[in-house]
Amino acid sequence: VTTLHRAEDVVVKNGVATLGPQPTSLIRLLDEIFAGWGSQAGAHEFTLPPILPVSDLAALEVYQNFPHLAMVATTLSTDAAAFTVDEAPDAEIGTDQLMPAGVGLPSAVCYGVYLHLRDRALHDTLVTAVGTCYRNEQRYEGLRRLGAFRMREVVALGSPEYTRSHIDRFSELVLAFATQVGLSVERQVANDPFFDTATPQALWQQVVPVKHEFVVDDLAVASVNEHRTFFGERCGIRQAAVRAPATSSCAAFGLERWVSVLAARYEDDWAAILEVVQQARAAVDTSRKD
Amino acid sequence: VTTLHRAEDVVVKNGVATLGPQPTSLIRLLDEIFAGWGSQAGAHEFTLPPILPVSDLAALEVYQNFPHLAMVATTLSTDAAAFTVDEAPDAEIGTDQLMPAGVGLPSAVCYGVYLHLRDRALHDTLVTAVGTCYRNEQRYEGLRRLGAFRMREVVALGSPEYTRSHIDRFSELVLAFATQVGLSVERQVANDPFFDTATPQALWQQVVPVKHEFVVDDLAVASVNEHRTFFGERCGIRQAAVRAPATSSCAAFGLERWVSVLAARYEDDWAAILEVVQQARAAVDTSRKD
Repeated sequence: VTTLHRAEDVVVKNGVATLGPQPTSLIRLLDEIFAGWGSQAGAHEFTLPPILPVSDLAALEVYQNFPHLAMVATTLSTDAAAFTVDEAPDAEIGTDQLMPAGVGLPSAVCYGVYLHLRDRALHDTLVTAVGTCYRNEQRYEGLRRLGAFRMREVVALGSPEYTRSHIDRFSELVLAFATQVGLSVERQVANDPFFDTATPQALWQQVVPVKHEFVVDDLAVASVNEHRTFFGERCGIRQAAVRAPATSSCAAFGLERWVSVLAARYEDDWAAILEVVQQARAAVDTSRKD
Repeated sequence: VTTLHRAEDVVVKNGVATLGPQPTSLIRLLDEIFAGWGSQAGAHEFTLPPILPVSDLAALEVYQNFPHLAMVATTLSTDAAAFTVDEAPDAEIGTDQLMPAGVGLPSAVCYGVYLHLRDRALHDTLVTAVGTCYRNEQRYEGLRRLGAFRMREVVALGSPEYTRSHIDRFSELVLAFATQVGLSVERQVANDPFFDTATPQALWQQVVPVKHEFVVDDLAVASVNEHRTFFGERCGIRQAAVRAPATSSCAAFGLERWVSVLAARYEDDWAAILEVVQQARAAVDTSRKD
């Protein structure tokens, strides 16, 4: 007789994860901490649509820049009264039984933010949201690389000074927190797959790198990204104070990746992890008040 | 100049919702309350995969029973080097540019529970999880009927006595809580679209109705469902104490629907709603300790 025991805390199969009670508590706690940093800086928390129109994502150049990573959603062609699906493992529903795809499963949370704020003039604004992100990767690897995972983002929109200070603030927080939880972390310049090498954006990025990753055990657990006016221009978001497109920047946290590096560091001792994370949260809060 | 003001608290378009800070807080609070009822009854909280193999869902008869409601996810056929997507509103990606669909977007949270517990012998077990559910409806209506929405479920597995007592316990809780928050609620027998009228299950259900909905303003905000051994048989889940398939039952809460009926009842006064919900939570907890 089996019951719900410890070995089932993390089950990963086909790029998706099932988490038991303790990792579920940990992911909630981590999300509260990262969202809390946003709230303390004045962020408005939003709940964003889990699916977005492909036409909206196309306007953000998502499909132009990485179609191979994209996942989309659709419905079944029910005029096929003889609709059948094979119960064999790995069975698929053929394209002859699918309808055209009108919506995409986002690969990042912040797309929904820019799309929600289209065509506005904004004062400096901070927004936070958590959501599930989907990426069709060549290979998956435990909690380190999933096809569907949770991401918390804190997004700044407004003047270049504001969106730059957001990056600085969150970089400090990530470094302080990682150190407090006993992880060895490095801030590294990274290439953003969002900007394909064939596009003008990529060229511009090579001149002024705008993505930094926070790397633990060769794994990026967080990143900070300066988009300049890329999304502001595409979504018609302007700075209220001046007649110019808004700049944007975001700090992004891969929640399962934090669980993964913490589980490795503390050998799956979830109680110890929860305690050290709570202590680190308090320590980072205290140091910021000093 | 617009800022993030009150009128943007709830924006619904094409069957998906964007929620501002206050409804986001409310949804989190409601979820904590419903999950808390589970935890107080000994539930293990799981995080379930947001996508499930279509072969697994097929084995649960999801596509047989309601293919028209189903949403599936797939990737793009990138051998189409000439991949294009129209940025016109309502543009779709044609099936000639899609790969076969290997995964489904679940229409209920509890499928993931049964699939995770496949082929086990269990003592009486309570599991809770929250997730996004997807339904391709004929029409959508504000937060009352969405194509993608959040559902909290508390699922019981084990003996018939246990799964029945779960339903009784949660029925009382829902009725008490709804009354405390000032909503007029009715418990109604309902048809479960899961069991199509053409299947033997439906016939059996007409004899012994197994779904009850809790209806506010003609809207089901929660339901309790007794599945007998339907999922136990299909997933090979057995009762540990006897050589028989496990029975299952679930209590399900449509989180946006609670937001919708509460917003209507209190005329979008989110501060008042948050307060009355906190008070109701405490009152229900107190009455249960008596």
